[in-house]
Amino acid sequence: MMRTPKRLLSGLLREDCFLIATHINPDGDAIGSSLALAEALASLGKKVFLYDRDPVPKYYHFLPGHRKFGTDLKKALKLDPVLILLDCNSPARAALGEVLFRKNLVIDHHETAGEFGDLRWIEKDAAATGILIYTLIHSLGLKITKSMATNLYTAIAVDTGTFRYSNTTNEVLRAAAELVGAGAEPNSIAEHLYETWDYGRFKLFLMVMNTLDKKDGVAIVHVTTDMFSQTGTTAEDTENFANLPRRIDDVNVAVLFRETGSGEWKASLRSKGSANVARVAEQFGGGGHKNAAGFRMKGDLVTVKKTLLKALKKTIV
Amino acid sequence: MMRTPKRLLSGLLREDCFLIATHINPDGDAIGSSLALAEALASLGKKVFLYDRDPVPKYYHFLPGHRKFGTDLKKALKLDPVLILLDCNSPARAALGEVLFRKNLVIDHHETAGEFGDLRWIEKDAAATGILIYTLIHSLGLKITKSMATNLYTAIAVDTGTFRYSNTTNEVLRAAAELVGAGAEPNSIAEHLYETWDYGRFKLFLMVMNTLDKKDGVAIVHVTTDMFSQTGTTAEDTENFANLPRRIDDVNVAVLFRETGSGEWKASLRSKGSANVARVAEQFGGGGHKNAAGFRMKGDLVTVKKTLLKALKKTIV
Repeated sequence: MMRTPKRLLSGLLREDCFLIATHINPDGDAIGSSLALAEALASLGKKVFLYDRDPVPKYYHFLPGHRKFGTDLKKALKLDPVLILLDCNSPARAALGEVLFRKNLVIDHHETAGEFGDLRWIEKDAAATGILIYTLIHSLGLKITKSMATNLYTAIAVDTGTFRYSNTTNEVLRAAAELVGAGAEPNSIAEHLYETWDYGRFKLFLMVMNTLDKKDGVAIVHVTTDMFSQTGTTAEDTENFANLPRRIDDVNVAVLFRETGSGEWKASLRSKGSANVARVAEQFGGGGHKNAAGFRMKGDLVTVKKTLLKALKKTIV
Repeated sequence: MMRTPKRLLSGLLREDCFLIATHINPDGDAIGSSLALAEALASLGKKVFLYDRDPVPKYYHFLPGHRKFGTDLKKALKLDPVLILLDCNSPARAALGEVLFRKNLVIDHHETAGEFGDLRWIEKDAAATGILIYTLIHSLGLKITKSMATNLYTAIAVDTGTFRYSNTTNEVLRAAAELVGAGAEPNSIAEHLYETWDYGRFKLFLMVMNTLDKKDGVAIVHVTTDMFSQTGTTAEDTENFANLPRRIDDVNVAVLFRETGSGEWKASLRSKGSANVARVAEQFGGGGHKNAAGFRMKGDLVTVKKTLLKALKKTIV
């Protein structure tokens, strides 16, 4: 059974002003966990700022309180807040490499962990940072409100593929049940997460799937800047595209290569079962989880594909 | 809180031989619930037969005990069993219209219900028949084994879209948590349900999606017998194909028309939120649930599309 470290609890209760910062390109776990923690701390009378370098993606705009996220630090820094790094564990992942805080707390569940932080709570086996915040809110003796429940359920849903990944334990499902009891709406959340494609995104999806290149257990699809302009879509719209090729029975790893426009490709890797793609992503300076990871690479498409295939072959496939 | 009727429990305990029959074209809820109930009754020393007109589809062959399902009644009828109609409530839905049993029990959760049965337990608000069987096994005081857990978790997962549909309550998630505690493996089950497409199915999927016809909140795709032969696939492979067009934001109802080869089309309807497609399917002699229903119609594609669109417009869209 997971427990919130006592020193973390006393640290949170003692301080008055916090900056919650999460990783760049924030996902549902990063955003939902941050919003729920911010609401909990605010209910204790604390001043709380929410920071991300990147704005909250449009498909997370249903999350209660998402407008509290800012992309500017100036106002917060004037009040000399304690930093809470959430869903990541190095300032660089939150684009905070240059900023110094008087105190640094870290709450995360990622496999790849450095040494940063005065107080670190990292649970590598937790399905989502949302599970840690759920535990923390209980430890603080606070009631879970409907908005906290929606944010935490979304956080957990996103990081477990709505209860389809191998990190879905009975504790995860029990937490989800309690969050639904507290007002989270599974159908509405799932519709927001998965069923709000605009028509351009549907067309882009078919275009991308038609690029499938399958070999030795690896399925690669790619998306070019040209496809984006043809369909009026953006990088955000490719979220989870690698999941379809992963369905093919003889595929262990599915990859989406996205052209970023600066001679660089962003790779999103999704694997099945025991194939650990975080290990491969790390070799190229990226990171992530066992079954979902990413990295960036310069070069033409043929070369980056070949380089990745070679690394995959050596490491896992 | 749902309860198993006492008369049903005493009826099950009193009798010695049962035939569990479920609906034609059985889905995960039909098969998983039947297998779990059969195991429970067998553990009490009862003789149990499992019957379906159609064989268990290949993608449900991971379910423990699926080989016990038979498509022949002869052997069972010699022993004069009590009929348990599961996940349907009329003998016709189980292709049993002509057969008479000395006693008929019905356990189901479908909206459309007739009057058949000496003893009927129908919970229209239950997410899955699997939830009824889960409750029943508890009422019988039996321990949930790993194989029962796998069968029941699959039953519930299939009928809730792995916890994405509006029937996902906190009770459903709590039951799922307990089943995982008893040995059900969410990731392995989800991979069996969603991630075992062969390459032909992937190609068929793209082919079918390219037929998209979208108008007035309705998205229609279709699959022809010719597409099946081009990709080496069968009707089974189209399971859940209507889910992708349903994702489009201005689509309320998604339809897959499948050519059956005899001048007939089988329509599978998937809707969002409050749009009740069971109401429409009933008009054409079909049935189902609020957000997932089906029916058959003779005619050329253009005509059947037009007829359905008209009915949808009148009823829900």
